[in-house]
Amino acid sequence: MSSYEDLLAHLRETDHFQSAARLAQWDQETGMPPNGETARAELLATLARHVHSRSTSGHLRELLEKATQEASTDDQKRQCELVRRDLDRASAVPARLVEEIVRTTSIAQQAWSRARKARDFAAFLPHLREVVSLKREEGACIAPPGGTPYDGLLSDYERGMTTSDWDGLFLELEAELPGLVASIVDRQRDSHARLDACSALRGPFPQTKQMETCRRLATGLGFDFQSGRLDLSAHPFSETVHAGDHRITTRLDESDLEGSLFSSLHETGHALYEQGLPQELTGTPLGGYCSMSVHESQSRLWENLVGRSDTYWETEYPGLLKDYSTLGYVPRDLWLAAVRRVRPSLIRTESDEATYNLHVLVRFRLEKALVAGDLDPEDLPAAWNESYRTLLGVAPSHDAEGCLQDVHWSAGLFGYFPTYTLGNLLSCQIYEAAQRAGATNDRASLLEWLRRNIHEHGHRWETPELIERATGSRPSSQAFLRHIRSRYLPEPLG
Amino acid sequence: MSSYEDLLAHLRETDHFQSAARLAQWDQETGMPPNGETARAELLATLARHVHSRSTSGHLRELLEKATQEASTDDQKRQCELVRRDLDRASAVPARLVEEIVRTTSIAQQAWSRARKARDFAAFLPHLREVVSLKREEGACIAPPGGTPYDGLLSDYERGMTTSDWDGLFLELEAELPGLVASIVDRQRDSHARLDACSALRGPFPQTKQMETCRRLATGLGFDFQSGRLDLSAHPFSETVHAGDHRITTRLDESDLEGSLFSSLHETGHALYEQGLPQELTGTPLGGYCSMSVHESQSRLWENLVGRSDTYWETEYPGLLKDYSTLGYVPRDLWLAAVRRVRPSLIRTESDEATYNLHVLVRFRLEKALVAGDLDPEDLPAAWNESYRTLLGVAPSHDAEGCLQDVHWSAGLFGYFPTYTLGNLLSCQIYEAAQRAGATNDRASLLEWLRRNIHEHGHRWETPELIERATGSRPSSQAFLRHIRSRYLPEPLG
Repeated sequence: MSSYEDLLAHLRETDHFQSAARLAQWDQETGMPPNGETARAELLATLARHVHSRSTSGHLRELLEKATQEASTDDQKRQCELVRRDLDRASAVPARLVEEIVRTTSIAQQAWSRARKARDFAAFLPHLREVVSLKREEGACIAPPGGTPYDGLLSDYERGMTTSDWDGLFLELEAELPGLVASIVDRQRDSHARLDACSALRGPFPQTKQMETCRRLATGLGFDFQSGRLDLSAHPFSETVHAGDHRITTRLDESDLEGSLFSSLHETGHALYEQGLPQELTGTPLGGYCSMSVHESQSRLWENLVGRSDTYWETEYPGLLKDYSTLGYVPRDLWLAAVRRVRPSLIRTESDEATYNLHVLVRFRLEKALVAGDLDPEDLPAAWNESYRTLLGVAPSHDAEGCLQDVHWSAGLFGYFPTYTLGNLLSCQIYEAAQRAGATNDRASLLEWLRRNIHEHGHRWETPELIERATGSRPSSQAFLRHIRSRYLPEPLG
Repeated sequence: MSSYEDLLAHLRETDHFQSAARLAQWDQETGMPPNGETARAELLATLARHVHSRSTSGHLRELLEKATQEASTDDQKRQCELVRRDLDRASAVPARLVEEIVRTTSIAQQAWSRARKARDFAAFLPHLREVVSLKREEGACIAPPGGTPYDGLLSDYERGMTTSDWDGLFLELEAELPGLVASIVDRQRDSHARLDACSALRGPFPQTKQMETCRRLATGLGFDFQSGRLDLSAHPFSETVHAGDHRITTRLDESDLEGSLFSSLHETGHALYEQGLPQELTGTPLGGYCSMSVHESQSRLWENLVGRSDTYWETEYPGLLKDYSTLGYVPRDLWLAAVRRVRPSLIRTESDEATYNLHVLVRFRLEKALVAGDLDPEDLPAAWNESYRTLLGVAPSHDAEGCLQDVHWSAGLFGYFPTYTLGNLLSCQIYEAAQRAGATNDRASLLEWLRRNIHEHGHRWETPELIERATGSRPSSQAFLRHIRSRYLPEPLG
């Protein structure tokens, strides 16, 4: 074997342990017996320690040095660059701090879960304080030269974009979105009244039938059930166990059909990306996804651009009518109005595509301030509520529908939220490019286009370059704003 | 931490990797997407290599030496003894041979599966030849002083019992069983005719309903679904992932209710044992099961002694009548006759409790001859068919219902079959002891008795000592023969 192949073999073996952990996590969310919780946490901790040790070992660095000297093709050079980056990133944080973060966030997540149930921010506050402080320390270790701790944390999810890049992006959105949302809500006033009056939209939709529908819709987008599964979980997610095994989950509620269908379309989008990554590079950084933003662009593209389009339901609504007799009272245009309903609300995960980025904007500014030390964790609820009032015109009546609604901060995921917004923007930019290429007339062509322009490149380039190559321009908010205007505020005909 | 605790921590960490492998195997059998096969095999191989390396490391030996010096209680001494034994056993086999066996049996199992489908022994022969030769070599490495390779292989499953011990046991059974079976079949002639005439016993039994019934019966025996699951698989099995997570599977056939019910009772028995092992010693050899035979005794006790008893169906048959309308045509005495039907047959896994050990006897003698080199693999089909004719009076019409029916040999499991028989014998011996203690009047008392006398001891003693302590005598075939006579050939009244 060549040195380069030795390096890949080491990476792939590390990935086997990560596969085992991903399976154990999937299982934990979908079907693990409750009493397995403690042992499962220990199992996951052991696997994480082992992976960290393999990923920072002197042996890996030796393999990398030799492979780097030998690398001749662009792909090989890029592979080595990515491995070096991961290695440097992992080595930049003292093992003591890594362990402390794992331990603290594990406890903080449980505390968060209890605090949310009890609507008791005070109970969560000491944990939040500790997590913020540890993540600030970590951010300082991994910050780019001259960057802040928050820059460091951001770079974990979207390399190369600094706080000020994100600031600019969100300012653009802030300048446009609130006005757009107000106009849309105004435009939709009549349809909201019709929707509120239609009890058939609230079911009942039998759960086993919903599972069947979700399965059919996923298949319809191109999800390959020979290489994947669909299961039930409290919070929908997608998880690749390893090559040939990509799993998605959905949640079911008898009174809410949209919830299961759109979360299935969303997770299917994630899984289609994973199923389309370069198979021959599986288990190596180059064979992995480009970034969280690009991942989210794929889920949002299928969920929103395809899934909330008129043509999609032209094809799929007859199937729904067969599945659910109650929908016999719901004409297709009313169903379309339901899936396109826009209104400022309190909960991010239930928000529509027009207001979603405002939810993210609130989180971005608050977490930036938390990490910088400009906002004391104690003052988070007040700052949160004030932001929602200003940006969305709604106010939480308690913290469970306010600053306690997301798991992210308790899990230490500072810097993650902004990628949701970039993903939304990219989904529109990518869809526009596919449209220009004539690839949006049917789903198979669209998937094929995405495979060739996004999926197959794995992590060959960073987000801006991948997007520029695929769409002809750098990431921007323009396509998204055009999409919102044209879907929700079309010029009246004639 | 003390040295002894250091040792336990190392063992438990190794067990985490084994847990991950057990979960991955469970998943492979119950729901893995077909295209995940190759990557899953690599994942399992990596975990196995890692576990083997941790289990033979110099570090472990060091920990063991220190812990042994420190060990003061009987349990601590026994723990060290078991660890040393595993370590010596693992170190006795060269890594080269271990790897060759893993690779060869992995390929041989696939070849076996194809050969069985095609009823083509010739296609399997070269693989069998290779496996036999490698296992002979392994057996020689681990044989007790003065023992044969087959003694070595036997000791992997039932320590301390040599080929000649097993020879003696099977001779006893051979002297009694064929005659008993003939008398039983003769006694059951009328009921066989009634059973053959009753089409209601062949369903249809809807699969989802069967799953519900299996779940209820498992719960009824004491299986704790807070610490376990029941799923569907091609071949029923039970698997402990880790503490608090014990899983069983069943297979479903609309025309065969007995198949799913009795395999569920069987696997529940295995799982009850695992759920009853000493929790504080989980992940260590002392906290593990005593032997394969004792494990099998627990599954067979619930399946046969409890599950085929009159009193069991007195309680449970009304539930079946509610579940399956077709059973309305089947009086309870006919159902009982069905689950107690005895007849010489070709397939071990479908055989009744009276003939089962004859199936094992055939395999024991043939594998002993294969490993000793007294039987050439090429001559296996002829020898198999001849044994079945002699011992059971039936002859396979092709090798798929003959020597290709079991996966064991392709997987390298030579020396395993005999433990099925010892398990059968022990189930009767243990049940008799529980009966003498007045613990068989209800299932909760029985489980409690088993917990106290078998489960809670983990691997504190070897099989003979555990059994003698629990039942007052060394393992023997007497209780089993008494059970068969009293259940199937009772003296006519009056």
